[in-house]
Amino acid sequence: MILLYHCVSARSFRPLWMLEECGIPYELKMLPFPPRYAAREYLQVNPLGTVPALFDGEVRMTESAAMCQYIAARYGPAAMDVKPDEASFGAYLNWVHFGEATLTFPQTIVLRYGRFETPERRNPQVEEDYRRWFLARLRAIDAVLSGQDYLCASRFTAADISVGYALMLAEFLDMESKFPAAVREYWQRLKNRDGYRKALEAQHQAAIGQKVSVVHAPLTTP
Amino acid sequence: MILLYHCVSARSFRPLWMLEECGIPYELKMLPFPPRYAAREYLQVNPLGTVPALFDGEVRMTESAAMCQYIAARYGPAAMDVKPDEASFGAYLNWVHFGEATLTFPQTIVLRYGRFETPERRNPQVEEDYRRWFLARLRAIDAVLSGQDYLCASRFTAADISVGYALMLAEFLDMESKFPAAVREYWQRLKNRDGYRKALEAQHQAAIGQKVSVVHAPLTTP
Repeated sequence: MILLYHCVSARSFRPLWMLEECGIPYELKMLPFPPRYAAREYLQVNPLGTVPALFDGEVRMTESAAMCQYIAARYGPAAMDVKPDEASFGAYLNWVHFGEATLTFPQTIVLRYGRFETPERRNPQVEEDYRRWFLARLRAIDAVLSGQDYLCASRFTAADISVGYALMLAEFLDMESKFPAAVREYWQRLKNRDGYRKALEAQHQAAIGQKVSVVHAPLTTP
Repeated sequence: MILLYHCVSARSFRPLWMLEECGIPYELKMLPFPPRYAAREYLQVNPLGTVPALFDGEVRMTESAAMCQYIAARYGPAAMDVKPDEASFGAYLNWVHFGEATLTFPQTIVLRYGRFETPERRNPQVEEDYRRWFLARLRAIDAVLSGQDYLCASRFTAADISVGYALMLAEFLDMESKFPAAVREYWQRLKNRDGYRKALEAQHQAAIGQKVSVVHAPLTTP
């Protein structure tokens, strides 16, 4: 059974959402945030101290967008994956990567220098630089979503979870009001999915059951 | 034929290196750096203004690590790709993503606040934060490379190109002397490959032929 280490609404929400969308059984281990300080023993599990960490037999992964691809290709219903012989294969790969590398990392800088650092190390200039950077990049998905419900292949795929998590984080960072119209509608569409709601409920119940404090907000490590 | 837009030694070096490793014909269009300022007409090609941009018939991609996967799965010799039924599939995906999301993005912050910004907007604290961040993450590849020549699947794959480019950039940022021993040997091993040398030569000749100034250093956009 897949074992997933997770902090409430951190990047590890991506594979959790994938598992719920696909109806795949899993074990969820909740950690307080940030685990590298709040749960030192976790460094034995993942020396980087980051979540997610996913274990599947001998397989060990730490990159949340890669996990979406992995779960889709290995276990998902065929529709969640896009195969190399499909016309949308290139677009699919591009969006899976774009969700993390282009849309999530800049937000971790906003979080770091806007909220997580000690007051004397915070930096409004850097925070603002990457807020603008993120919002400018949303134009790329706005252009695509103006003509279709999902990012590629005319269906909901792992690529939508990769990008969807970046929008979840942006909502936490109070940027939803600045989403272009088609992006805002898309994010509402994603939030209405059963898989998304089940993932929210799963992390809530697991946090209570494992006595990990439930922070009702997306969090991610810088 | 694949068309690749490229700036000397920017992230677009990843797909260039892949194409040379795989012996796939391509057309290379060189741009001055940074293209969104130095070649405004490029915004017609890629509204984000970033390199790489790759076109293959109807396929259009902007994420360099995704391109490595795409080229491997669609056109590469089988050895460059790792298929879902291989034991190393999870590790392969993880390293392809890790190379960009975890190892390259932090370096763009070092570049931005250490070199590219105007003097009054530079920030030694932020630059140093992400230098340390990058070097700490190298421990993850050091642990793996201490026992094997390549990152996964007992062979050179697209994952090595994704991570290899991050090391190329780190050398430019004067961090090579801080690489852990196994990482330093690995990077030397990659630089000795014919494919890497051919990619360096290809960008050099294309820059001369297309009269784009040759900056002999890796550059990437923040």
